[in-house]
Amino acid sequence: MKKFINEPADVLADALRGVAAAHPRLRVDHENRVIFRAEGPRRGKVGLVSGGGSGHEPLHGGFVGQGMLDAAACGEVFTSPVPDQILAATSGVDGGVGVLHIVKNYSGDVMNFEMAAELADVEVVSVIVDDDVAVTDSSFTVGRRGVAGTVFVEKIAGAVAERGADLAEVARLARKTDDNARTMGLALTSCTVPAVGHPTFDLPENQIELGAGIHGEPGRKRVELPSANEMAQMLIDPVLADLDFTLGENGVVLLVNGLGGTPLIELYLMCAEFTRLLDAAGITATRTLVGNYVTSLDMAGCSVSLLRLDDELTDLWDAPVDTPNLHWA
Amino acid sequence: MKKFINEPADVLADALRGVAAAHPRLRVDHENRVIFRAEGPRRGKVGLVSGGGSGHEPLHGGFVGQGMLDAAACGEVFTSPVPDQILAATSGVDGGVGVLHIVKNYSGDVMNFEMAAELADVEVVSVIVDDDVAVTDSSFTVGRRGVAGTVFVEKIAGAVAERGADLAEVARLARKTDDNARTMGLALTSCTVPAVGHPTFDLPENQIELGAGIHGEPGRKRVELPSANEMAQMLIDPVLADLDFTLGENGVVLLVNGLGGTPLIELYLMCAEFTRLLDAAGITATRTLVGNYVTSLDMAGCSVSLLRLDDELTDLWDAPVDTPNLHWA
Repeated sequence: MKKFINEPADVLADALRGVAAAHPRLRVDHENRVIFRAEGPRRGKVGLVSGGGSGHEPLHGGFVGQGMLDAAACGEVFTSPVPDQILAATSGVDGGVGVLHIVKNYSGDVMNFEMAAELADVEVVSVIVDDDVAVTDSSFTVGRRGVAGTVFVEKIAGAVAERGADLAEVARLARKTDDNARTMGLALTSCTVPAVGHPTFDLPENQIELGAGIHGEPGRKRVELPSANEMAQMLIDPVLADLDFTLGENGVVLLVNGLGGTPLIELYLMCAEFTRLLDAAGITATRTLVGNYVTSLDMAGCSVSLLRLDDELTDLWDAPVDTPNLHWA
Repeated sequence: MKKFINEPADVLADALRGVAAAHPRLRVDHENRVIFRAEGPRRGKVGLVSGGGSGHEPLHGGFVGQGMLDAAACGEVFTSPVPDQILAATSGVDGGVGVLHIVKNYSGDVMNFEMAAELADVEVVSVIVDDDVAVTDSSFTVGRRGVAGTVFVEKIAGAVAERGADLAEVARLARKTDDNARTMGLALTSCTVPAVGHPTFDLPENQIELGAGIHGEPGRKRVELPSANEMAQMLIDPVLADLDFTLGENGVVLLVNGLGGTPLIELYLMCAEFTRLLDAAGITATRTLVGNYVTSLDMAGCSVSLLRLDDELTDLWDAPVDTPNLHWA
């Protein structure tokens, strides 16, 4: 295992010192391992908390800031944050009008966020993200997994919260975003968890894992290494089969997401393939993101996510955002 | 070789279609393989052209936009653009007051940019970037190599050009930036060039290549895999030995750059180590970037770059920039 680490047990604590050093507009609670906006909660604004296991950076900490999250609770690598961490995040963003939890659908996360919500002395509503069409009931999940579509939910909910909407309205839009988002990914290689020291799964040099999860969970099947245009087809077909994306009044947001070990030139190449396939299906990607947004440590691979845009979601998607890893004016 | 590609010979052309699809504010000249700002040249503004071999994304195309480059000429992977491409870029950004070429110091690039400058019917000044302290006279270079410090040069020159400075002044600031920038990197693994199909060099599982170049050129030496804090020391020591960074009136910009295959959590961990070592040396990183900026395809590894900040460079560094991969207000 070749990694930039000191002790495997210290990876998260060490990395959080780097986050604190790099981003003066964030505040890191090193004891609870929570990343906050430095300016603290705004009175009268719904607080937005997400979090989960680490190893998916920039998710979630890279999306803390104006127009997106208020805090991210950082679990150990691929391990849910414990309720105390989530509770600290929840209390720390309380502006007096409630807190939304955005939770990727993994059993450990769902349980720990629930416990924190019960312990909190502020009103909490939870929204579960389950955008992955690959499988139902995976290794750590009942139902579908939450993957790269989480970026859509955090962006839209963050935008409406920033405008002063109440908790019910923020929750409604977070759920609506999840309902209109679908993702499918594939792995070219396994990731390696630092505390484990060897690849999570074995994948022969001539095979890919279609539908692999962001923790290396099994996908739908393994196939012989296809060309990029074939892989794009294998990813976009199940997404389009699952929801009618031609119904988007304003087209779709296309997110071509790298899993950590895939270079940007290949992601742009996949972007070209996805755009071509969407055009052929009568769907226009009116907004596009290409890069590493929801990763799986050093896994080579990518996922494609679509968000169906009506006027309401378009307006919120385009609203200003200013975080370390997503920002526009 | 597991990559998202169709034909190895088509990687660049395919990826440029993705760039065009993803970024409506850029215009791609597919015939000449040049990425331009969509709005075209501004009358009375010095045009800024950079470029080089592909495979280093987001460099250079991801830095085309307001406050940075006007065009990037994209060579094949790890291959200089030919003079005709550079000439097309130069003509295409001509606002009537001259064009600056920002060229990484590789013999092929230097020669081809020189030929294009001679052929152009606009005044051209060239600035050579040679920030890599690792080695002198490498595989493709006489003198030092140009690596991640190129981001500094493109940002500072872009900022002063945007303000309407004349060609001599833009060139002066580009050179001053290069004079105040130093970089050192290391590889944990080799990259694999698509047209070659196997790793560029063999590196045993227990070794790293200290000072490796961004095309896989040899570095200073190979050492047994150290811990992160040891690797940080090995990278920062030659940087600090080469220039007195304590003299920065406003500290330094710290760029912790991933080479393509290293996940963000490890780069933040390295950021923590670099910040600690700089503090110990009496140097404050007043601005910090962490991420993939100048990559080497899928190489796992990182580099550290410092830019010494006086008031003039600080002011230009902080000026607004709006490109796909660098933007702040």
